[in-house]
Amino acid sequence: MAHVDPDAEAVGVPESDLAVARAANPRPIEAVAADLGLAPADIEPRGDGIAKLTQEAVRSATADAAAAAGTTVLVTGMTPTPKGEGKTVTTVGLGQALSALGESTAVAVREPSLGPIFGIKGGAAGGGYSQVLPMEAINLHFTGDIHALTAAHNLISAALDNHLHQGNDADVDVRRVDWPRALDVNDRALRETVVGLGGSAHGVPRENEFVITAASELMAALGLAADLADLKARIGRIVLAETADGDPVTPADLGVTGAVAALLRDAFRPNLVQTNEGVPALVHGGPFANIAHGTNTLVADRVGASLADYLVTEAGFGADLGAEKFADIVAREGIVPDVAVVVATVRGAKRHGLEMWPADFDALAEPDPDAVRAGVANVRRHVEIVESFGIPAVVAINVFPDDTEAELAAIESTLDDAGIAVARSTAYMAGSDGALDLAELVRERAGTGAYAPLYDLDAPLREKCETVAREVYGADGVEYVDGAAADLDRIEEWGHGGLPVCLSKTPYSLSDDPSLTGVPEGWTLTVREASVSAGAGFVVVKTADVMTMPGLPAEPAAEGIDIDADGDVSGLF
Amino acid sequence: MAHVDPDAEAVGVPESDLAVARAANPRPIEAVAADLGLAPADIEPRGDGIAKLTQEAVRSATADAAAAAGTTVLVTGMTPTPKGEGKTVTTVGLGQALSALGESTAVAVREPSLGPIFGIKGGAAGGGYSQVLPMEAINLHFTGDIHALTAAHNLISAALDNHLHQGNDADVDVRRVDWPRALDVNDRALRETVVGLGGSAHGVPRENEFVITAASELMAALGLAADLADLKARIGRIVLAETADGDPVTPADLGVTGAVAALLRDAFRPNLVQTNEGVPALVHGGPFANIAHGTNTLVADRVGASLADYLVTEAGFGADLGAEKFADIVAREGIVPDVAVVVATVRGAKRHGLEMWPADFDALAEPDPDAVRAGVANVRRHVEIVESFGIPAVVAINVFPDDTEAELAAIESTLDDAGIAVARSTAYMAGSDGALDLAELVRERAGTGAYAPLYDLDAPLREKCETVAREVYGADGVEYVDGAAADLDRIEEWGHGGLPVCLSKTPYSLSDDPSLTGVPEGWTLTVREASVSAGAGFVVVKTADVMTMPGLPAEPAAEGIDIDADGDVSGLF
Repeated sequence: MAHVDPDAEAVGVPESDLAVARAANPRPIEAVAADLGLAPADIEPRGDGIAKLTQEAVRSATADAAAAAGTTVLVTGMTPTPKGEGKTVTTVGLGQALSALGESTAVAVREPSLGPIFGIKGGAAGGGYSQVLPMEAINLHFTGDIHALTAAHNLISAALDNHLHQGNDADVDVRRVDWPRALDVNDRALRETVVGLGGSAHGVPRENEFVITAASELMAALGLAADLADLKARIGRIVLAETADGDPVTPADLGVTGAVAALLRDAFRPNLVQTNEGVPALVHGGPFANIAHGTNTLVADRVGASLADYLVTEAGFGADLGAEKFADIVAREGIVPDVAVVVATVRGAKRHGLEMWPADFDALAEPDPDAVRAGVANVRRHVEIVESFGIPAVVAINVFPDDTEAELAAIESTLDDAGIAVARSTAYMAGSDGALDLAELVRERAGTGAYAPLYDLDAPLREKCETVAREVYGADGVEYVDGAAADLDRIEEWGHGGLPVCLSKTPYSLSDDPSLTGVPEGWTLTVREASVSAGAGFVVVKTADVMTMPGLPAEPAAEGIDIDADGDVSGLF
Repeated sequence: MAHVDPDAEAVGVPESDLAVARAANPRPIEAVAADLGLAPADIEPRGDGIAKLTQEAVRSATADAAAAAGTTVLVTGMTPTPKGEGKTVTTVGLGQALSALGESTAVAVREPSLGPIFGIKGGAAGGGYSQVLPMEAINLHFTGDIHALTAAHNLISAALDNHLHQGNDADVDVRRVDWPRALDVNDRALRETVVGLGGSAHGVPRENEFVITAASELMAALGLAADLADLKARIGRIVLAETADGDPVTPADLGVTGAVAALLRDAFRPNLVQTNEGVPALVHGGPFANIAHGTNTLVADRVGASLADYLVTEAGFGADLGAEKFADIVAREGIVPDVAVVVATVRGAKRHGLEMWPADFDALAEPDPDAVRAGVANVRRHVEIVESFGIPAVVAINVFPDDTEAELAAIESTLDDAGIAVARSTAYMAGSDGALDLAELVRERAGTGAYAPLYDLDAPLREKCETVAREVYGADGVEYVDGAAADLDRIEEWGHGGLPVCLSKTPYSLSDDPSLTGVPEGWTLTVREASVSAGAGFVVVKTADVMTMPGLPAEPAAEGIDIDADGDVSGLF
């Protein structure tokens, strides 16, 4: 059985992401900025190879929405395994390939969160010959945006508990506080806590949870804000708690909107770095893809689409989650994908063909073209989801070094037979050279559709949920349990019924049950809880408990990370 | 009664610190660096007017301890009122005045902490015409050092709770965990918490406190580390908890030393900014002055003293706390003050003359030269403390706009009569022009002493405590209560008896009772608790509960802070 790439040694399967990063010869960030038409005065350097756009440059690039005339490419994927199918690698590789074809291109991806980096080995900045640089700095604090969000989040928390302590003029019901504290760490011991202990000098005792900062509503609000004024308005309307009468309590009620926004002043400005081939990359924001919309900031997308001819951006998990939210939430704010790439893998397809859950990665490494072929049904369904929004789709097969030709051909031929555009990508192993076919396909298909969101905003919240459940997830209907219907009623009473819905669901199945592989049919979506993220601008609808504070494993990645006397960090990848 | 400065209107009592900051015309940071002999390649810009020294530049400047040949000026003070007597303003103003006299000068001060900024109005970057710039950025995240410390601190916390959760191989006694969590916020509700609730999937329940990040031992360890290798070694030996057998548990035991050090890689590098007159300022680190040593980082001092002829640095609270710790802890690491400035004020002296506690600032505004004259005894005692270390002292009277000439003369003449060098400083109102006399005095007196620490490190811990109590605080002796003696015994058993002691005591009296003003006599120091900060490199000896997590007041400063659509922040000062 022939392996895909007999020249892998010659092309160079990278020894490690770190080796590629260290071997790269980055351009001065001013030169990268110049590719986007940005002058040195338009950026503020933030360390070697890193800059933030100035407030003026951001405003200038985003002032005219019509100026965001570049082609927007959204990278999404099939139903993934827990290890992911390589959307970021494909995003970066595709960006590099479009650039190699002579197109002015910007890549936009999310910022990595420190918690998972020290938990389960792995950063979130692509990999191999398709990664963003400087890898170490991006993974360790970067420009401090996530830390700024942590500080801003916890200022609200402190103001809320101070309000309780100082007399509770707003009559906040301490049993109905829905604002956690936040830290960028994997720390299960903070999931459920009691704060305010120690007597009357030390606050009011109450239950309180901590979330990882990426799960903070502030992250989502930052991610969708059009400008600083809009950010401030979003912060002011976040629902933190309820009064004894059931009315919402907001940061505006606490008088801290301006202070919180001030803490996010610089975090709002996109970060500019480059890929390992020197293509401009905007790395900015990092909201969850279940309780939030799961893509980099709107402002980064707007800057990229305004300053480059092609913007390649990414949304989390499969098309049922990331692409649906992009189309129904983000695109309404003004960034509409002209084409989408659905990333598929041999491993991912095989898992569906084998109807396997949980994923057994040793078993998935065994070649099985028939299982792969059967699993392509899942890929096809994700293509249909994307196209149901009027967005043309292309499938990228993200090739792993050990994939067999028979398995790759199984995906390709099955999609070909269905009339779906497909290209292999070896961007991990070969950078832009590995994604040229994909880039050609993307250019051909871009702009051939007519985008429309799935539902009207003035529909009732339950109707919106049902539309997503039926038309995206393939459910027969929706069942509301545990007070979820009452939650939705209350949100409508508060006047937030006109927001889009953001459904939180397992990413490992199109259904709400991760053991249902392929394209599940004959099932009903169970909705358990709903809450309004009024600052972010959507209603979160939960179908299961969502882990908003991860834990560390028995052997955390932190144990393998080190720094030497010269400041060189090892073990990050 | 004539006010001090009839030309105040003309010189310009500043409308606000912000007004001065906005009116300043900062030099390019590369030009500021050039004053220190640093090339553009020796610094990494971090936003307008802000840079971090590169790792190479730090190493080069600190490689040869003997090269730190510049004159080191330590700014300390009398026993302060809760509003402070203006040490940072005097530090910055003196640095500007030395520069105006033609001396190559660097100023070194601590980084402001976000918590207090949003709590009680006020930053920590000097003020008026003697402040460091850019004020807004320095007060809002700056270069992220404190956020990096927060992340590093909480990674240790997460690793410790994960260790408990994963089987507790080290046999940690959950009742004897002495490692808090940390956040840079004023949040009393986090002082006492219970974590690990929610069942067996969510960690082991235990009591846990949060401290403000400035109070983290990591802040102190960073502040005293000579280089990255030393920092790593310090992190590895922090005592986090005890085993069931009473042995210490450290980050090295948890296997996370390298990861924690990696998170502090950039935080270790000093930040370069400038004063409002363009003098180089190293703003770096910010440990407490009670449970820690209360001055900016050693590495910033070493860089400053190596690259400039004069380094002006500052230590917290009065000479009994900041200067004692500087002389007994910091100076042993290689930075020895050649001269010290004791900052005194009319208000501060008056409080002692009136034997007033708590401080009534309205009453202190009433002119009372006799009370001021009586209170100078406190100033004289602080001069004696400084000189007991062989460090020549100069008193700076930090002049406030409403001080009367009679009161200022009362301080001056009383000190003159005692043969103590004294100069007025109007650095707040007049910048360098207001501190020229002080600068002349400092130049004259520098290097005329012979430094020696107060005690030998091989003395028993109790002897060290008693030496500080008698010879610095003026106590008759020391009483150990509440198990403090047993604490010290255990620390010696663990092998940490050779460390210096870091006494935590009220700053508002030379004694351990804030109501005892002037120069208290006939009292005994009560020691209540001791713990080892083995990573910082000292034994903390507490004479009272220390507030390591402040709270917000009824009307937090946060409510007055705002940002406009252009990103301009108001209300910070």
